[in-house]
Amino acid sequence: MNAQRDYADLVQRGLTLDLTRGKPSPRQLDLSDDLLKLPTSYRTADGTDGRNYGGLQGLPELRELFGPLLQVPAAQLVVGGNSSLTMMHDTIVHALLSPLPGGARRWVEEPEVTFLCPVPGYDRHFTICERFGIKMVAVPMGADGPDMDVVERLVAADPTVKGIWCVPKYSNPSGIVYSDETVRRLAAMPTAAPDFRIFWDNAYAVHHLTGDPAELADVLALAAEHGNPDRVFVYGSTSKVTLAGSGVAFFGSSPANVEWFLANTAKQSIGPDKINQLRHVEFLRDADGVAAHMRRHAELIWPKFELVDRVLAKELGGLATWTSPKGGYFISLEVPHAAEVVAKAKAAGIALTPAGATHPYGQDPDDRVIRIAPTFPDLEELEQAIAGLAVCVRLVAEERG
Amino acid sequence: MNAQRDYADLVQRGLTLDLTRGKPSPRQLDLSDDLLKLPTSYRTADGTDGRNYGGLQGLPELRELFGPLLQVPAAQLVVGGNSSLTMMHDTIVHALLSPLPGGARRWVEEPEVTFLCPVPGYDRHFTICERFGIKMVAVPMGADGPDMDVVERLVAADPTVKGIWCVPKYSNPSGIVYSDETVRRLAAMPTAAPDFRIFWDNAYAVHHLTGDPAELADVLALAAEHGNPDRVFVYGSTSKVTLAGSGVAFFGSSPANVEWFLANTAKQSIGPDKINQLRHVEFLRDADGVAAHMRRHAELIWPKFELVDRVLAKELGGLATWTSPKGGYFISLEVPHAAEVVAKAKAAGIALTPAGATHPYGQDPDDRVIRIAPTFPDLEELEQAIAGLAVCVRLVAEERG
Repeated sequence: MNAQRDYADLVQRGLTLDLTRGKPSPRQLDLSDDLLKLPTSYRTADGTDGRNYGGLQGLPELRELFGPLLQVPAAQLVVGGNSSLTMMHDTIVHALLSPLPGGARRWVEEPEVTFLCPVPGYDRHFTICERFGIKMVAVPMGADGPDMDVVERLVAADPTVKGIWCVPKYSNPSGIVYSDETVRRLAAMPTAAPDFRIFWDNAYAVHHLTGDPAELADVLALAAEHGNPDRVFVYGSTSKVTLAGSGVAFFGSSPANVEWFLANTAKQSIGPDKINQLRHVEFLRDADGVAAHMRRHAELIWPKFELVDRVLAKELGGLATWTSPKGGYFISLEVPHAAEVVAKAKAAGIALTPAGATHPYGQDPDDRVIRIAPTFPDLEELEQAIAGLAVCVRLVAEERG
Repeated sequence: MNAQRDYADLVQRGLTLDLTRGKPSPRQLDLSDDLLKLPTSYRTADGTDGRNYGGLQGLPELRELFGPLLQVPAAQLVVGGNSSLTMMHDTIVHALLSPLPGGARRWVEEPEVTFLCPVPGYDRHFTICERFGIKMVAVPMGADGPDMDVVERLVAADPTVKGIWCVPKYSNPSGIVYSDETVRRLAAMPTAAPDFRIFWDNAYAVHHLTGDPAELADVLALAAEHGNPDRVFVYGSTSKVTLAGSGVAFFGSSPANVEWFLANTAKQSIGPDKINQLRHVEFLRDADGVAAHMRRHAELIWPKFELVDRVLAKELGGLATWTSPKGGYFISLEVPHAAEVVAKAKAAGIALTPAGATHPYGQDPDDRVIRIAPTFPDLEELEQAIAGLAVCVRLVAEERG
């Protein structure tokens, strides 16, 4: 009764609020507005004219800056265009069409290619797999990362398993951080496929929201230590550091993998946008500059994460569970009948990522996970949206008894 | 004797000159230095925040600007990243992995895929084919474009022929412009493959060097008129308009092809660098702005083309033939024993594109074509390089009798 009346009130208010995508807010983007007047010089550190063609691997000074942040030696880091998603997509294209180091043949020649997908996970990873007919197998996530017993069993038994998607730090959408033991087991585990790869999407490497930044084990070093030097592809970007559409993206891996990647990229490009790379070096300067810049983001974002936590606790205590991440861009809410909750919210003008989007093929078998992206709306809108969402959860709980 | 003495003198001088790649000179790049302080606003014409994610097809205002210049309706134009080569490469990747409109299956499932390669042509086109195991068949170029009798015969007879590379205006490297009749025949010809495509690399669409700009027939419109609306992929970029490494690239085609292209691109990217697109709109403004800017390029480049023509005429009259383009970036020199000439030049410190690079698989069966890229060196260096090259041609002619 109570929930029904609250929902009727909610619909009455005619909201149009959007919690669908992890977009920085305009105030966050303002933090990087100086970029629009940079660079002040087109010369790279070694004196090259950054305006002309060339420099396929990206500027050494930018690789030096981000190498330590992504735990990749600068010599093994590649700077690409404005999107790490593109670099992930293109890595899979390259693997489909050219054998990987250690691989016997191109993936298009395999009868089947399977990727493990820790769930809940990032929908755009799953979309890439679907687009290329790569079979996806869901693996449950815990507080320390994917269930490693399941992962180890699957990669050891099945030679069609060629990859696993990982967002190891402040994971999308749960916000959890892989434990050292999880990282070690991923680096060390025996795999049936000689060309198995970990797609290590370290999208939130520097995206701490509290004074207690999470530490992540060095997966590249651990893989090498355990005799699997070519196992890991590392990705990162400044999409949520500087400008979402106009940042720079990174690929890092072993020397053999980098050589393979660049040999393929050389057929695709004469070189990346070095002026945008210079712009980023001049603006961010060094690791301290990045950390200071990310603290300014955190000042804007952290109150939003706190607000979501507070409103959910007040409205849904006992009816639902959710994560309370210390970094990243997302909160994962688990409720019964998630699809119905999302539909009710939509009818009330609150747009949420479709239920199921956090799972391969858009199928959440338990119909439980809702991804909340709190960064874009301002605090007032966010409070309305989360309170409204809570009403929908309570309504569905009441209706479903 | 004379040539041998001249060559000995040349080697003695210890030159280090580079005519290999079609790079703009620093003075040309200076013409676009205002770009480094733009845009003054991050708002797109429709009020969108250009700093955030999204806008996969590219800014409408930039598509309106370049649509007429590339002879593509703005609604059918896509703006990508910094490289049309990337868009060409990725189009072939998409065709390998997703059936084209009108195609029965993905190209990777075809027993063989063949591309026609008018020669001399652009080496990076051929490299893409080689990388994906696409068979290349050379077709001779004349003053009006590829030999259309040969093209028509091959595409009508052989269903494995899926594509043809064309640089229709100020072609790389001969500088010739396709005649209206050539364009009409390309648009109208029957093809055995239902998913045959023309890769129309209009790289030099606005790159006129004289007061008499070449006109190119509208291939998209002609193809539609002749019942082949989906036949043509158009490419272009500002790499040689603004900054070589930091420009914007375009893909244009029929509505069905654009839908296919964007559906595939949507899996690869959340959107292009819209700030760089805004930068270009603000800097170039409109078609008149582009034309005025290209006249400033021509003022710098045209004296170099004239110089090459003059030196070659003076030194090689009767010993060689070469083209005298009215636009673009290259001059094609034809001499006997081209590979030997290039080797002699290299030994004298004059770097030229490898002989054969203008042909598929790097094989020029007549060993005749040398591509000259005159834009990057200054006039003095260029004169030394061309005079030195002429010495090498005379030496080889004398030695070979």
